[in-house]
Amino acid sequence: MSDFITIPIQDSHRLVNTGNVILVSAQSQDKKTVTTVAWHMPVSNQPKLLSCALANKRYSLELIKESRCFCINIPEFKLLDAVVFCGTYSGREVDKCKETNLTAVPCSKIHGFYIEECVAQIECELYSMIEAGDHTIMVGNVVDAMAQKHLFTPDGVIDINKVQLIHHLGGTHFGILKSQEK
Amino acid sequence: MSDFITIPIQDSHRLVNTGNVILVSAQSQDKKTVTTVAWHMPVSNQPKLLSCALANKRYSLELIKESRCFCINIPEFKLLDAVVFCGTYSGREVDKCKETNLTAVPCSKIHGFYIEECVAQIECELYSMIEAGDHTIMVGNVVDAMAQKHLFTPDGVIDINKVQLIHHLGGTHFGILKSQEK
Repeated sequence: MSDFITIPIQDSHRLVNTGNVILVSAQSQDKKTVTTVAWHMPVSNQPKLLSCALANKRYSLELIKESRCFCINIPEFKLLDAVVFCGTYSGREVDKCKETNLTAVPCSKIHGFYIEECVAQIECELYSMIEAGDHTIMVGNVVDAMAQKHLFTPDGVIDINKVQLIHHLGGTHFGILKSQEK
Repeated sequence: MSDFITIPIQDSHRLVNTGNVILVSAQSQDKKTVTTVAWHMPVSNQPKLLSCALANKRYSLELIKESRCFCINIPEFKLLDAVVFCGTYSGREVDKCKETNLTAVPCSKIHGFYIEECVAQIECELYSMIEAGDHTIMVGNVVDAMAQKHLFTPDGVIDINKVQLIHHLGGTHFGILKSQEK
Protein backbone atom coordinates (compact mmCIF):
# COMPACT_ATOMS: atom_id res chain seq x y z
CA MET A 1 0.00 0.00 0.00
CA SER A 2 3.04 2.27 0.00
CA ASP A 3 2.08 3.91 -3.28
CA PHE A 4 -1.47 4.66 -2.15
CA ILE A 5 -2.57 8.06 -0.93
CA THR A 6 -5.66 9.31 0.83
CA ILE A 7 -8.11 11.04 -1.50
CA PRO A 8 -10.12 13.92 -0.01
CA ILE A 9 -13.71 12.73 0.42
CA GLN A 10 -14.85 15.73 -1.64
CA ASP A 11 -12.90 14.39 -4.65
CA SER A 12 -13.83 10.73 -4.26
CA HIS A 13 -16.62 10.82 -6.86
CA ARG A 14 -13.97 11.44 -9.53
CA LEU A 15 -12.96 7.79 -9.16
CA VAL A 16 -16.33 6.74 -10.61
CA ASN A 17 -17.41 9.84 -12.54
CA THR A 18 -16.66 8.44 -16.00
CA GLY A 19 -19.11 5.56 -15.48
CA ASN A 20 -16.37 2.94 -15.15
CA VAL A 21 -17.19 -0.55 -13.92
CA ILE A 22 -16.65 -1.04 -10.16
CA LEU A 23 -16.33 -3.97 -7.80
CA VAL A 24 -18.52 -3.70 -4.70
CA SER A 25 -17.24 -5.68 -1.73
CA ALA A 26 -19.34 -6.43 1.32
CA GLN A 27 -18.99 -8.36 4.54
CA SER A 28 -21.33 -9.36 7.33
CA GLN A 29 -19.58 -11.08 10.19
CA ASP A 30 -17.57 -13.84 8.45
CA LYS A 31 -19.62 -13.81 5.22
CA LYS A 32 -17.87 -11.99 2.38
CA THR A 33 -18.59 -11.31 -1.27
CA VAL A 34 -17.55 -9.06 -4.14
CA THR A 35 -19.72 -8.22 -7.12
CA THR A 36 -19.30 -6.37 -10.41
CA VAL A 37 -21.43 -3.28 -10.93
CA ALA A 38 -21.83 -1.09 -14.01
CA TRP A 39 -24.99 0.60 -12.73
CA HIS A 40 -23.77 3.24 -10.30
CA MET A 41 -23.56 7.03 -9.97
CA PRO A 42 -22.62 9.79 -7.55
CA VAL A 43 -25.72 11.45 -6.09
CA SER A 44 -24.59 14.26 -3.79
CA ASN A 45 -21.61 16.52 -3.08
CA GLN A 46 -22.52 17.62 0.45
CA PRO A 47 -22.57 15.07 2.01
CA LYS A 48 -20.58 13.02 -0.52
CA LEU A 49 -22.96 10.23 -1.56
CA LEU A 50 -22.35 7.51 -4.15
CA SER A 51 -24.96 4.98 -5.23
CA CYS A 52 -25.32 1.69 -7.06
CA ALA A 53 -28.22 -0.45 -8.20
CA LEU A 54 -28.05 -4.09 -7.10
CA ALA A 55 -30.39 -6.84 -8.33
CA ASN A 56 -32.73 -7.84 -5.51
CA LYS A 57 -31.48 -11.42 -5.55
CA ARG A 58 -27.81 -10.53 -5.15
CA TYR A 59 -25.89 -11.88 -2.18
CA SER A 60 -24.04 -8.56 -1.85
CA LEU A 61 -27.35 -6.78 -1.25
CA GLU A 62 -28.14 -9.21 1.57
CA LEU A 63 -24.75 -8.61 3.22
CA ILE A 64 -24.97 -4.82 2.86
CA LYS A 65 -28.43 -4.83 4.45
CA GLU A 66 -26.91 -6.69 7.40
CA SER A 67 -23.68 -4.72 7.79
CA ARG A 68 -25.01 -1.34 6.56
CA CYS A 69 -21.76 -0.56 4.73
CA PHE A 70 -19.90 -1.44 1.53
CA CYS A 71 -16.66 -0.74 -0.28
CA ILE A 72 -16.31 0.44 -3.90
CA ASN A 73 -13.14 -0.86 -5.61
CA ILE A 74 -11.81 0.47 -8.92
CA PRO A 75 -10.44 -2.28 -11.19
CA GLU A 76 -8.16 -1.73 -14.17
CA PHE A 77 -8.70 -3.41 -17.52
CA LYS A 78 -6.02 -6.00 -16.75
CA LEU A 79 -8.38 -7.40 -14.09
CA LEU A 80 -11.14 -7.98 -16.66
CA ASP A 81 -11.24 -11.77 -16.22
CA ALA A 82 -11.78 -11.39 -12.47
CA VAL A 83 -14.31 -8.61 -13.05
CA VAL A 84 -16.36 -10.76 -15.44
CA PHE A 85 -16.16 -13.71 -13.02
CA CYS A 86 -17.39 -11.59 -10.11
CA GLY A 87 -20.33 -10.43 -12.23
CA THR A 88 -21.22 -13.95 -13.36
CA TYR A 89 -21.20 -16.11 -10.23
CA SER A 90 -22.90 -15.69 -6.86
CA GLY A 91 -21.00 -15.35 -3.62
CA ARG A 92 -23.53 -17.77 -2.16
CA GLU A 93 -21.94 -20.57 -4.18
CA VAL A 94 -18.28 -19.63 -4.62
CA ASP A 95 -15.52 -17.80 -2.77
CA LYS A 96 -14.94 -15.19 -5.47
CA CYS A 97 -11.70 -13.78 -4.09
CA LYS A 98 -10.20 -17.26 -3.95
CA GLU A 99 -11.36 -18.20 -7.46
CA THR A 100 -10.02 -14.97 -8.99
CA ASN A 101 -6.87 -14.56 -6.88
CA LEU A 102 -8.10 -11.22 -5.57
CA THR A 103 -6.81 -10.28 -2.12
CA ALA A 104 -9.28 -9.13 0.54
CA VAL A 105 -7.78 -6.60 2.97
CA PRO A 106 -9.70 -5.22 5.98
CA CYS A 107 -11.10 -1.69 5.49
CA SER A 108 -9.98 1.05 7.84
CA LYS A 109 -13.27 2.84 8.63
CA ILE A 110 -16.01 0.27 7.99
CA HIS A 111 -16.69 -3.40 8.70
CA GLY A 112 -15.63 -4.78 5.34
CA PHE A 113 -12.72 -5.36 3.00
CA TYR A 114 -11.17 -3.86 -0.09
CA ILE A 115 -9.49 -5.55 -3.06
CA GLU A 116 -5.73 -5.03 -2.92
CA GLU A 117 -5.27 -5.45 -6.70
CA CYS A 118 -7.56 -2.49 -7.50
CA VAL A 119 -6.18 1.01 -8.07
CA ALA A 120 -8.53 2.74 -5.61
CA GLN A 121 -11.16 2.04 -2.99
CA ILE A 122 -13.96 4.06 -1.42
CA GLU A 123 -15.42 3.05 1.94
CA CYS A 124 -19.13 3.85 2.39
CA GLU A 125 -21.64 3.67 5.19
CA LEU A 126 -25.18 2.93 4.05
CA TYR A 127 -27.11 6.22 3.82
CA SER A 128 -30.36 4.98 2.29
CA MET A 129 -31.81 2.09 0.35
CA ILE A 130 -34.60 2.43 -2.23
CA GLU A 131 -36.35 -0.43 -4.01
CA ALA A 132 -36.93 0.29 -7.70
CA GLY A 133 -38.25 -2.50 -9.93
CA ASP A 134 -36.04 -5.60 -9.83
CA HIS A 135 -33.09 -3.76 -8.25
CA THR A 136 -32.45 -1.76 -5.06
CA ILE A 137 -30.61 1.56 -5.10
CA MET A 138 -27.99 1.56 -2.35
CA VAL A 139 -26.81 5.05 -1.43
CA GLY A 140 -23.53 5.21 0.46
CA ASN A 141 -21.99 8.04 2.48
CA VAL A 142 -18.24 8.15 1.73
CA VAL A 143 -16.14 7.87 4.90
CA ASP A 144 -12.73 7.11 3.39
CA ALA A 145 -11.05 6.97 -0.03
CA MET A 146 -7.61 5.79 -1.13
CA ALA A 147 -6.01 5.63 -4.56
CA GLN A 148 -2.67 4.88 -6.21
CA LYS A 149 -0.50 7.99 -6.32
CA HIS A 150 -0.29 8.15 -10.11
CA LEU A 151 -4.07 7.96 -10.66
CA PHE A 152 -4.79 11.68 -10.86
CA THR A 153 -3.39 14.40 -13.11
CA PRO A 154 -2.25 17.69 -11.53
CA ASP A 155 -5.75 18.96 -12.45
CA GLY A 156 -7.23 16.38 -10.10
CA VAL A 157 -8.92 14.19 -12.69
CA ILE A 158 -8.31 10.51 -13.50
CA ASP A 159 -5.22 10.22 -15.72
CA ILE A 160 -6.60 7.96 -18.46
CA ASN A 161 -3.21 7.91 -20.16
CA LYS A 162 -1.86 5.99 -17.17
CA VAL A 163 -4.82 3.89 -16.02
CA GLN A 164 -7.26 1.89 -18.11
CA LEU A 165 -10.63 1.82 -16.39
CA ILE A 166 -13.29 -0.59 -17.65
CA HIS A 167 -16.50 0.55 -19.36
CA HIS A 168 -19.28 -1.93 -20.09
CA LEU A 169 -20.84 -1.71 -23.53
CA GLY A 170 -23.12 -4.72 -22.98
CA GLY A 171 -22.76 -8.49 -22.97
CA THR A 172 -19.08 -9.42 -23.14
CA HIS A 173 -18.09 -6.14 -24.77
CA PHE A 174 -15.98 -3.57 -22.97
CA GLY A 175 -14.10 -0.38 -23.75
CA ILE A 176 -11.55 1.97 -22.24
CA LEU A 177 -11.33 5.76 -22.37
CA LYS A 178 -8.96 7.90 -24.36
CA SER A 179 -8.49 11.64 -24.07
CA GLN A 180 -10.25 13.72 -26.65
CA GLU A 181 -9.61 17.39 -27.23
CA LYS A 182 -12.06 19.57 -29.11
CA MET B 1 -35.64 11.38 -38.58
CA SER B 2 -35.54 8.99 -41.55
CA ASP B 3 -32.40 7.25 -40.29
CA PHE B 4 -33.80 6.70 -36.78
CA ILE B 5 -35.24 3.40 -35.65
CA THR B 6 -37.26 2.36 -32.62
CA ILE B 7 -35.15 0.64 -29.96
CA PRO B 8 -36.89 -2.09 -27.94
CA ILE B 9 -37.51 -0.75 -24.44
CA GLN B 10 -35.66 -3.77 -23.05
CA ASP B 11 -32.47 -2.64 -24.84
CA SER B 12 -32.77 1.08 -24.10
CA HIS B 13 -30.35 1.01 -21.13
CA ARG B 14 -27.55 0.18 -23.57
CA LEU B 15 -27.70 3.79 -24.74
CA VAL B 16 -26.44 4.92 -21.32
CA ASN B 17 -24.69 1.80 -20.01
CA THR B 18 -21.14 3.04 -20.57
CA GLY B 19 -21.72 6.03 -18.27
CA ASN B 20 -21.74 8.53 -21.14
CA VAL B 21 -22.89 12.11 -20.52
CA ILE B 22 -26.57 12.72 -21.35
CA LEU B 23 -28.80 15.72 -21.93
CA VAL B 24 -32.03 15.65 -19.95
CA SER B 25 -34.83 17.70 -21.51
CA ALA B 26 -37.98 18.64 -19.63
CA GLN B 27 -41.07 20.69 -20.28
CA SER B 28 -43.98 21.88 -18.16
CA GLN B 29 -46.66 23.65 -20.17
CA ASP B 30 -44.69 26.24 -22.16
CA LYS B 31 -41.60 26.17 -19.90
CA LYS B 32 -38.71 24.19 -21.38
CA THR B 33 -35.16 23.39 -20.40
CA VAL B 34 -32.32 21.00 -21.16
CA THR B 35 -29.52 20.14 -18.76
CA THR B 36 -26.28 18.15 -18.88
CA VAL B 37 -26.03 15.12 -16.61
CA ALA B 38 -23.07 12.81 -15.91
CA TRP B 39 -24.64 11.32 -12.79
CA HIS B 40 -27.10 8.73 -14.07
CA MET B 41 -27.55 4.95 -14.15
CA PRO B 42 -30.02 2.24 -15.14
CA VAL B 43 -31.75 0.77 -12.09
CA SER B 44 -34.07 -1.99 -13.26
CA ASN B 45 -34.67 -4.34 -16.19
CA GLN B 46 -38.29 -5.27 -15.47
CA PRO B 47 -39.76 -2.66 -15.62
CA LYS B 48 -37.02 -0.79 -17.51
CA LEU B 49 -36.04 2.05 -15.18
CA LEU B 50 -33.30 4.66 -15.72
CA SER B 51 -32.29 7.24 -13.14
CA CYS B 52 -30.35 10.46 -12.80
CA ALA B 53 -29.32 12.68 -9.90
CA LEU B 54 -30.24 16.35 -10.30
CA ALA B 55 -29.06 19.13 -7.99
CA ASN B 56 -31.98 20.34 -5.89
CA LYS B 57 -31.72 23.86 -7.27
CA ARG B 58 -31.89 22.82 -10.91
CA TYR B 59 -34.69 24.22 -13.08
CA SER B 60 -35.03 20.85 -14.83
CA LEU B 61 -35.92 19.23 -11.50
CA GLU B 62 -38.68 21.79 -10.98
CA LEU B 63 -40.13 21.12 -14.45
CA ILE B 64 -39.96 17.33 -14.06
CA LYS B 65 -41.76 17.56 -10.72
CA GLU B 66 -44.53 19.46 -12.49
CA SER B 67 -44.79 17.37 -15.67
CA ARG B 68 -43.79 14.02 -14.14
CA CYS B 69 -41.77 13.02 -17.21
CA PHE B 70 -38.43 13.70 -18.89
CA CYS B 71 -36.44 12.80 -21.98
CA ILE B 72 -32.86 11.46 -22.04
CA ASN B 73 -30.90 12.58 -25.13
CA ILE B 74 -27.56 11.05 -26.19
CA PRO B 75 -25.09 13.66 -27.52
CA GLU B 76 -21.99 12.90 -29.57
CA PHE B 77 -18.62 14.47 -28.87
CA LYS B 78 -19.11 16.97 -31.69
CA LEU B 79 -21.87 18.57 -29.57
CA LEU B 80 -19.46 19.17 -26.67
CA ASP B 81 -19.75 22.98 -26.75
CA ALA B 82 -23.53 22.76 -26.45
CA VAL B 83 -23.24 20.06 -23.77
CA VAL B 84 -20.89 22.21 -21.67
CA PHE B 85 -23.17 25.24 -22.14
CA CYS B 86 -26.25 23.29 -21.01
CA GLY B 87 -24.37 22.17 -17.90
CA THR B 88 -23.16 25.67 -17.06
CA TYR B 89 -26.19 27.94 -17.38
CA SER B 90 -29.67 27.73 -15.88
CA GLY B 91 -32.80 27.44 -17.98
CA ARG B 92 -34.32 30.01 -15.66
CA GLU B 93 -32.08 32.67 -17.21
CA VAL B 94 -31.44 31.58 -20.80
CA ASP B 95 -33.19 29.69 -23.60
CA LYS B 96 -30.55 26.96 -23.90
CA CYS B 97 -31.79 25.47 -27.18
CA LYS B 98 -31.69 28.89 -28.82
CA GLU B 99 -28.22 29.74 -27.46
CA THR B 100 -26.75 26.40 -28.55
CA ASN B 101 -28.66 25.94 -31.83
CA LEU B 102 -30.18 22.70 -30.56
CA THR B 103 -33.57 21.85 -32.04
CA ALA B 104 -36.44 20.89 -29.72
CA VAL B 105 -38.87 18.41 -31.28
CA PRO B 106 -42.05 17.22 -29.49
CA CYS B 107 -41.78 13.74 -27.95
CA SER B 108 -44.17 11.04 -29.11
CA LYS B 109 -45.26 9.42 -25.81
CA ILE B 110 -44.69 12.08 -23.15
CA HIS B 111 -45.28 15.82 -22.67
CA GLY B 112 -41.81 17.00 -23.53
CA PHE B 113 -39.27 17.38 -26.30
CA TYR B 114 -36.14 15.70 -27.58
CA ILE B 115 -32.99 17.20 -29.13
CA GLU B 116 -32.92 16.53 -32.86
CA GLU B 117 -29.11 16.77 -33.10
CA CYS B 118 -28.58 13.89 -30.64
CA VAL B 119 -28.07 10.31 -31.84
CA ALA B 120 -30.74 8.80 -29.59
CA GLN B 121 -33.50 9.70 -27.18
CA ILE B 122 -35.33 7.85 -24.42
CA GLU B 123 -38.73 9.05 -23.21
CA CYS B 124 -39.45 8.41 -19.52
CA GLU B 125 -42.41 8.80 -17.22
CA LEU B 126 -41.46 9.65 -13.62
CA TYR B 127 -41.50 6.44 -11.56
CA SER B 128 -40.14 7.75 -8.27
CA MET B 129 -38.19 10.62 -6.80
CA ILE B 130 -35.81 10.30 -3.85
CA GLU B 131 -34.03 13.15 -2.08
CA ALA B 132 -30.41 12.32 -1.23
CA GLY B 133 -28.17 15.07 0.13
CA ASP B 134 -27.99 18.07 -2.20
CA HIS B 135 -29.45 16.18 -5.18
CA THR B 136 -32.66 14.30 -5.95
CA ILE B 137 -32.64 10.91 -7.67
CA MET B 138 -35.22 10.90 -10.46
CA VAL B 139 -36.19 7.40 -11.56
CA GLY B 140 -37.89 7.17 -14.96
CA ASN B 141 -39.90 4.36 -16.52
CA VAL B 142 -38.91 4.06 -20.20
CA VAL B 143 -41.93 4.38 -22.51
CA ASP B 144 -40.18 4.94 -25.85
CA ALA B 145 -36.65 4.88 -27.29
CA MET B 146 -35.29 5.87 -30.69
CA ALA B 147 -31.74 5.83 -32.07
CA GLN B 148 -29.85 6.37 -35.30
CA LYS B 149 -29.73 3.17 -37.34
CA HIS B 150 -25.96 2.87 -37.28
CA LEU B 151 -25.65 3.20 -33.50
CA PHE B 152 -25.64 -0.50 -32.63
CA THR B 153 -23.42 -3.36 -33.76
CA PRO B 154 -25.05 -6.63 -34.88
CA ASP B 155 -24.42 -7.79 -31.28
CA GLY B 156 -26.74 -5.05 -30.05
CA VAL B 157 -24.18 -2.89 -28.28
CA ILE B 158 -23.20 0.72 -28.99
CA ASP B 159 -20.77 0.80 -31.93
CA ILE B 160 -18.03 2.99 -30.46
CA ASN B 161 -16.11 2.84 -33.72
CA LYS B 162 -18.91 4.83 -35.34
CA VAL B 163 -20.17 7.07 -32.56
CA GLN B 164 -18.16 9.11 -30.06
CA LEU B 165 -20.10 9.39 -26.82
CA ILE B 166 -18.92 11.85 -24.18
CA HIS B 167 -17.46 10.78 -20.82
CA HIS B 168 -16.83 13.34 -18.09
CA LEU B 169 -13.49 13.06 -16.29
CA GLY B 170 -14.08 16.17 -14.17
CA GLY B 171 -13.91 19.93 -14.68
CA THR B 172 -13.47 20.68 -18.35
CA HIS B 173 -11.89 17.30 -19.14
CA PHE B 174 -13.67 14.71 -21.27
CA GLY B 175 -12.90 11.42 -22.97
CA ILE B 176 -14.33 9.03 -25.51
CA LEU B 177 -14.35 5.23 -25.58
CA LYS B 178 -12.29 2.93 -27.71
CA SER B 179 -12.71 -0.82 -28.07
CA GLN B 180 -10.34 -2.92 -26.05
CA GLU B 181 -9.88 -6.64 -26.48
CA LYS B 182 -8.28 -8.75 -23.83
